[in-house]
Amino acid sequence: MEWISHSRILIVGLGLIGGSYAKALKRLGYHVTAIEKRQSAIDFALENHIIDDGYTEVDREIVSSADAVIFGLYPQVFKEWIAQYQEYFKEGAMITDVTGVKSCIVYDIQNMLRDDVEFIASHPMAGKEVYGVENADDAIFRSANFIIVPTEKNTAEAIRWIGGLGRILGFSRISVLSPEEHDEMIGYLSQLTHCIAVSLMTCSDNEHLVDYTGDSFRDLTRIANINDLMWSELFMLNREPLLKYMNIFLSEFESIRDMIRDGRVEELRAKMRLSTKRRAYFNK
Amino acid sequence: MEWISHSRILIVGLGLIGGSYAKALKRLGYHVTAIEKRQSAIDFALENHIIDDGYTEVDREIVSSADAVIFGLYPQVFKEWIAQYQEYFKEGAMITDVTGVKSCIVYDIQNMLRDDVEFIASHPMAGKEVYGVENADDAIFRSANFIIVPTEKNTAEAIRWIGGLGRILGFSRISVLSPEEHDEMIGYLSQLTHCIAVSLMTCSDNEHLVDYTGDSFRDLTRIANINDLMWSELFMLNREPLLKYMNIFLSEFESIRDMIRDGRVEELRAKMRLSTKRRAYFNK
Repeated sequence: MEWISHSRILIVGLGLIGGSYAKALKRLGYHVTAIEKRQSAIDFALENHIIDDGYTEVDREIVSSADAVIFGLYPQVFKEWIAQYQEYFKEGAMITDVTGVKSCIVYDIQNMLRDDVEFIASHPMAGKEVYGVENADDAIFRSANFIIVPTEKNTAEAIRWIGGLGRILGFSRISVLSPEEHDEMIGYLSQLTHCIAVSLMTCSDNEHLVDYTGDSFRDLTRIANINDLMWSELFMLNREPLLKYMNIFLSEFESIRDMIRDGRVEELRAKMRLSTKRRAYFNK
Repeated sequence: MEWISHSRILIVGLGLIGGSYAKALKRLGYHVTAIEKRQSAIDFALENHIIDDGYTEVDREIVSSADAVIFGLYPQVFKEWIAQYQEYFKEGAMITDVTGVKSCIVYDIQNMLRDDVEFIASHPMAGKEVYGVENADDAIFRSANFIIVPTEKNTAEAIRWIGGLGRILGFSRISVLSPEEHDEMIGYLSQLTHCIAVSLMTCSDNEHLVDYTGDSFRDLTRIANINDLMWSELFMLNREPLLKYMNIFLSEFESIRDMIRDGRVEELRAKMRLSTKRRAYFNK
């Protein structure tokens, strides 16, 4: 485990995911420092032993003492941070992120980054519909997927290092995808599903639905409780794959609607059997 | 609790819901008989003390000894059963069902039914993606909704009686809707969600999705594991409300797609905030 050597971790952005990383890493014995604008988040994290120390301002000494830096920032803020403060990084530092879109940030950051520091992108496929370190919970990583998103610029050492992070955080599956493959996958699996949930929730203004609903509507709209600032940014940064999958879904949905409208029951049943068969991969 | 007087319950159709009713009612001390074509289901229910006795054939003596009869059959089969065997019912018997569509059966059954027997429709909004009495589980009724669906033909006594059933089964909310209101609601909350889940699951043939997915896709496709025989029948019997809501959802989804395509971020964020606000009714 090459992770033993990286004893000082800096987490920039102590939100739900950054905070959950901090919680897990501190418990594993790493020294965890946080930089987070919100003083109350730092206070909470200190009181609850989620971090060893925390600061609201970026400082050369804090950044340069970290062997590894994990960014829990929104994509554009992340890029601006690197542009502004990368000179502070320790020589040989490893950098990763938790960002939900990749093509639009990975190349830009690798291109601007100092040669003696390596950025290896990764995406923890875990979350909750609540925000902030106050809701940090490293149990969300168990049975979740961790995606490593290297480019040709990344070294084998960095890929091993980030795989080690996924393992010690407790993720159950660790996969490797290119930035383009990642963004396609996320357009379908995550962003399309959020668009569906929002559409389903906003297409009726009946306030009494909760009195009649079963689990299915509840499940499909759990993520309709959505952080509009973060998700609108993620959607805009991944517009092309997302629109592609929105259109594929639309045409599939319309074809099922037409089967129902025209009473083509056998075709409808065949679709349902295909759906059941494909969903079975998720039960293994 | 007028339910004390109805000590002998007959359940026709011992599937997941019929079986879960049986389990709860027997535990509460009622005498529970089942009629179910599948001998193995009867055997399982007897061995596991879910019923007191069970039969694979309909018999006058069995039916006529029941004070209340609960039908766990598919809609068309349910209508045929009533047409064929209603002469067996005990005078004054109360009858209910668990069927997912109402307008297309409630009036037909009430019109054909003997005057000395009352059919009061109800819909337990609970289920699992598994079938049969072998998976019976009366815990699914806790925190679930129970909908009573009376017509003008129903007596106050029957409405009280069926409310009592909902309460003793442990449902957390009991509501009353007309057959037409029920079918509208179900078209939106249950059938539309199943159409969405099937479309989402069938619009990609990638078998490796499970390696990359987060909870959102998993949640939205849980019900993509679907009983094609039952659901295609339910869709066809409720075609008009379902198509109405499919089209409302389509136009909402398209309008969100257009906002993303055109970069109308403020409108998109407003939709997300509306979605979050509406979803909040479900958290109370």
